[in-house]
Formats: sequence, C-alpha cells, structure tokens
Amino acid sequence: MRVAVLGVGLIGGSIGLAAKERLRCEVVGWGPRQESLDRGLELGAVDRRADSIEEACAGAEVVFCAAPVAQLTGLARAALDASGQDVVVTDAGSTKREIVAALGDDERFVGGHPLAGAETAGVDNAREGLFEGARWYLTPTERTGGILYDRLQRTIAGLGARPQAIDAEVHDRLMATVSHLPHVLANVLAGLAAAELTRDSERMPEVGPSFRDATRVAGSNPSIWGDIFAANGDAVAAAIDDVVTRLGEARELIRSGEPAAIAVWHAAAAADRRRLLETELAGGPLHELRVIVANQPGTVAELALALGEAGVNIEDMALHPATDMKSGAISLWVAGDEQVQRAASLVRDLGHSATVLAGE
Amino acid sequence: MRVAVLGVGLIGGSIGLAAKERLRCEVVGWGPRQESLDRGLELGAVDRRADSIEEACAGAEVVFCAAPVAQLTGLARAALDASGQDVVVTDAGSTKREIVAALGDDERFVGGHPLAGAETAGVDNAREGLFEGARWYLTPTERTGGILYDRLQRTIAGLGARPQAIDAEVHDRLMATVSHLPHVLANVLAGLAAAELTRDSERMPEVGPSFRDATRVAGSNPSIWGDIFAANGDAVAAAIDDVVTRLGEARELIRSGEPAAIAVWHAAAAADRRRLLETELAGGPLHELRVIVANQPGTVAELALALGEAGVNIEDMALHPATDMKSGAISLWVAGDEQVQRAASLVRDLGHSATVLAGE
Repeated sequence: MRVAVLGVGLIGGSIGLAAKERLRCEVVGWGPRQESLDRGLELGAVDRRADSIEEACAGAEVVFCAAPVAQLTGLARAALDASGQDVVVTDAGSTKREIVAALGDDERFVGGHPLAGAETAGVDNAREGLFEGARWYLTPTERTGGILYDRLQRTIAGLGARPQAIDAEVHDRLMATVSHLPHVLANVLAGLAAAELTRDSERMPEVGPSFRDATRVAGSNPSIWGDIFAANGDAVAAAIDDVVTRLGEARELIRSGEPAAIAVWHAAAAADRRRLLETELAGGPLHELRVIVANQPGTVAELALALGEAGVNIEDMALHPATDMKSGAISLWVAGDEQVQRAASLVRDLGHSATVLAGE
Repeated sequence: MRVAVLGVGLIGGSIGLAAKERLRCEVVGWGPRQESLDRGLELGAVDRRADSIEEACAGAEVVFCAAPVAQLTGLARAALDASGQDVVVTDAGSTKREIVAALGDDERFVGGHPLAGAETAGVDNAREGLFEGARWYLTPTERTGGILYDRLQRTIAGLGARPQAIDAEVHDRLMATVSHLPHVLANVLAGLAAAELTRDSERMPEVGPSFRDATRVAGSNPSIWGDIFAANGDAVAAAIDDVVTRLGEARELIRSGEPAAIAVWHAAAAADRRRLLETELAGGPLHELRVIVANQPGTVAELALALGEAGVNIEDMALHPATDMKSGAISLWVAGDEQVQRAASLVRDLGHSATVLAGE
C-alpha cells in the first residue's frame, strides 16, 4: 500500500516511520519546507520526496495531512483535489469541526486526531512507536464512504493506535474540557502567581509540586496554541464558563468555612479523577460481531459512531461487500463478553441484523 | 539540646529523625494516638515517649507542634502553658494567620510552615531527609523574642531546611495562590470532565498528559484539605476571584479568534512560569553581614522580615549579645556579592549599623 504524508514533522514523520516499519507501506512525503523533507528522507520517515501535492497523492491509497491547524483545511482540500475516487484523505489536527464542516461532504475525507506527540515538535523527534496504544479519534460523517473509512481505521490500528469514531462537535467539546481548558488554567495560574511578585516588592513565591504540576503546560508552543484556541474558541469559551460557575460554587463553600462540607466536595473530586483515569475498558476475549447491512454510504460511519458514543471500542473492522455491492456484511471485533453483547444490541437497535461469532 | 515533638506523624517523625541524626538532639515525643507514638519510638523518630504535653515540654528548648491545622492552636497554647520562659514553641501548619493571631503575642511563639511532605502522611513515611533544601516559612511578630527566634531558625536550618521569615498575612495569601488554588482548580477540572460522562451517555473522555498534570492533586487527603481550605477560606476565595477575573479576560481573547493575540497571551504565561521557577536566587560566596543593634525584643524579627520581604535569603544567623544584654551584634550570612550589599543597605535603612565582612 502506498501512503502519502503531507507535512513531515513530528506527527507526519512518525506516521511515515510506523507505516513503513509496521505496515510495510511505501511512504511518499511532501512538505512546504525542503529542509524537513530532506531530514525525513535521511531519517527513513519517507521513502521518497514529492515535489508537489499532486505528485505525493498520485497512486496513494491513504493521504495524511499533518500541518498546523490553521493550514489543514486548505491542505486537505488540495489533497482531495489531487486524489482519485479510491483514496481516503485524513488529517491530524487538534480541532475537528472546522475542517469537517468544510470537507465532510466529500466521501473521501475523514477527520482525524491522534492523542500523541504534544510534548515535542519537529521531524527529528519522530519515532515509529509514537502512536503505540494512543487514542486516535476519527470523525466520519453520514457521507463518509464505508470502504474508505474501513481502510483508514485499519491503517491507524496498524500504526499501533486505537481508533475511535466520534462526532466532530462532541470531539471539540471534549477536547475543550480535557485538553484546551487545562492549558488556559495553567496560563491563568502562572500569571496570577507572577503578579504576586510585584505585589510584595521582589518577593518570589516559593512554588511547590502542586503548582508545578498545575502550570506545567503554561505557555507551551505559543504558535500552535494560538491556532488551536482560535479554531475551538467557542467550545473553550463554554468550558471556561463552566469552570467559572463551578469556581463560584467552590468559593462559597470554602468561604463558609465548614471543614466537613469542604471535605465532602474534595472527596468527590478524588472520585471524579479516579473514574476519568479508569478509561481503559476492561479487556477480555476478542469477539467478532457480524452485521448484515445494506451497503449504503454512511452505514459504516453510523455504526462506528453509535458504538463509539456508547464507549464500545472497535478493535478491528472488516467489510465484506456482496457481489451486487448493494448489501454486505461488516465484521466488528470487540473485546470482552459484555461489551460485544452491548455492541450487538446497539447495532440491532439501529435496524441491522447482528450475530456474535465465537471469540478468538 | 532537647526537642519536644507534639504529634508524631510524617512531619513530627521527620523532625525527630533529623533532629537526632543531624543535630544530635534528644527528642521527646507526645501524641494523642498511642499507636503512632509506639511506632515513632520503634523507628527511632523519638528517644522517649511522654505521657502528657507537660512531660514532653519539661526541659525542652524547642517545641514543635505537628498536628492537623484545626488542632494546632489549641495544641500550641497547651505547649506554651507547659513551657518555661526560655522555650520557643512553633508549629508546622499550612496556614498561619489564625494561629499567629491567637498566640503571636507570646514572645515564645513563632509560627512555622515547612514546604515538604504534602504527598504522604503517617509516621511510617517519616524520614531524616524530608526537609533537605525545603523552604520553611517562619512568621515572627514584633513581639517575638530575638534569641528564641535565632534558636528556632538555626534548628530548622540544622534539619536541612531553608528558613525564611514572612508575615503571616502575606504567607496565607501566597499559599492561597501557589498551593491552595491549584488544588481548587484540580478539583473543579476533574468534576467538569466527569460531568462530560453523563452528557454523552457513557462515553469516557480520553485524558491526556495535560489533564493528568492539571488534576493530579484533585481530592488528595480530604480530611487535611477540609481544614486547610476552611482556615484560609477568605484568602482562597480572593484567589478564586482573581482567577475568575483572569478567566473572563482569557475567554474574551479566545472567543475573539485572533491567533496572533492569543499567542502573545500564551507566550506571556510561559515567561511568567519561567520567572516563578527561577526562584532559586543566584548563589555565590557566602558573606557575613555584621549588624549592631539595640537588643530590643523584635529587632531580630524586624530584620528577618525586612530581608525576607526583599527576597534576600538568610543562610545562617548568629546573635552576639553584649554583656549588658541591652545591645549586641547579629551576624547574618547571605550568599552572593550583590545580595549581601542589598541586605546591608536594607539593614541601614532600618537605622542599624551594618558591615560586610569578608566572604568565606
């Protein structure tokens, strides 16, 4: 299989390395900076360099766009223009509504977002194992082609990641809360503590581990974060509103000076955090769920979204189109006895016939 | 020297171990729980067990009170009642205004707060090196006895910590910002993300490293934090107000969708954090600053506070009372050429004669 990588930095370079080493793909790279491309070739992240987007996409089956958020929509559009009908184009941007609104009507486009690599940048830091075990969100729409989605999902699983379908709107709201908001809070806290410097002449407040943790990401990569905050501005603003509401409640509780009531609130936060970190679903034997569907555009995406929403992780997927190409079967692999039964009932609720086959 | 430790848990036990091993003190322990006392004896944190506060304080030169914040004022008052005139009583609580307001009129009491040990509890975790290099705030008042303050400061430096005088009011405000507020933000963020669970059926938001860092302390030790928040309620509430104001500004900026303006704000946060983490003063050769003072109560505290406020760290201190006990000299050791000159000029501004002696 041939893969095109448009933008050979940390993410693009790591996709290239993993695609070559894990999937034995041929990887063609293109990027606006000759230097990064040369370095990518030197490091073995790409097999060859293309001089244009057209050249990179020619003959590729999967095209990854890995550029800063502000440039992604233009880049992916150019990739779609340069690609044939049997090509899936995806991106690796941290926000998804904008690009999906612009390109989601094209059945060949699926938005993507790997949760990996935030701590560094540049092709020199690329590595084959960057996506190992990482969540990789995909945002299919009802227009997304089933065969193309299936190919992308397998490719991403092959890179070592755990693909999960999610609605673009939900994705951006979730990211606003669990990723963008922590950055805003870190910035605000750093600014507040620094202001204490001027308040008490030149006293430097001694900072402890809780402060260090809370501000670790303050101001990281201003060029990237300017774009991310701007692209997800309304969702981040809504998350800030939620924080302000909860801070107001905390303020009243703390001012009340009731240690017991404060301790209850505090203990609830501990339970919340524990729940959030136990996100790994209980594993178990892998089952195949065979679904018979009318092979309409959108069915695969519909299934993937419904299962993703219910927290069921699709470990693998295969399409078995009937010869008439109008109906067919889809195999979904799901880990755990309970999970696969839930998946089956969700699929049946959507009006499809579903059978659980023996576990591996 | 004999030291009494009232409350033999993580902090009290570590004080005992360090006092025995580093200062060759005799350590007498008392506590409300027989079990902890027995364990402290077994671990060598105390040389012997006292059956009452009176017995523990008899003959001690320094008394450390290391109990939960809500019990500290009562405990320290009992210690003062049980102690003679030549004893310094201190505590290790995270908030200082309340106890200083209650006991600061007694020249034998100096509030204290070591910035160490927040991550665990219990005498089983006590260790001799817990305070090595840690800031240990002291809150003398104008009533504090100079000789007693000097003894306490040396004892604490001898435990391996870096004592610094600070006003109790300023201490609590600083702690509200750099310690208590991060805990509030962590709690609020964990609660907000957990609420997303119910918003999207059973979806678990995948959390990344920034979220993990930002919520690491969420809900830690509810019994301790109920007391701390309650004792510092108004300062924490004021810090929350400041955060809310700044969040409102951030919200408008982010909603504006101007990547360049957002990037400027973001870069400023990076600079703020850098400044805060560069709290270690530039080192340099250690100088002795010899100050001639009228040996009035309060002079030592006045000097320590003035230098602490200006960010000058007193590495060591010695009192040389004249035989008439009405005047005397104080030696202050300060690291760095520039720092000692600043210290000298600050001391002269306070009306004292000061000479910088040759560096070590």
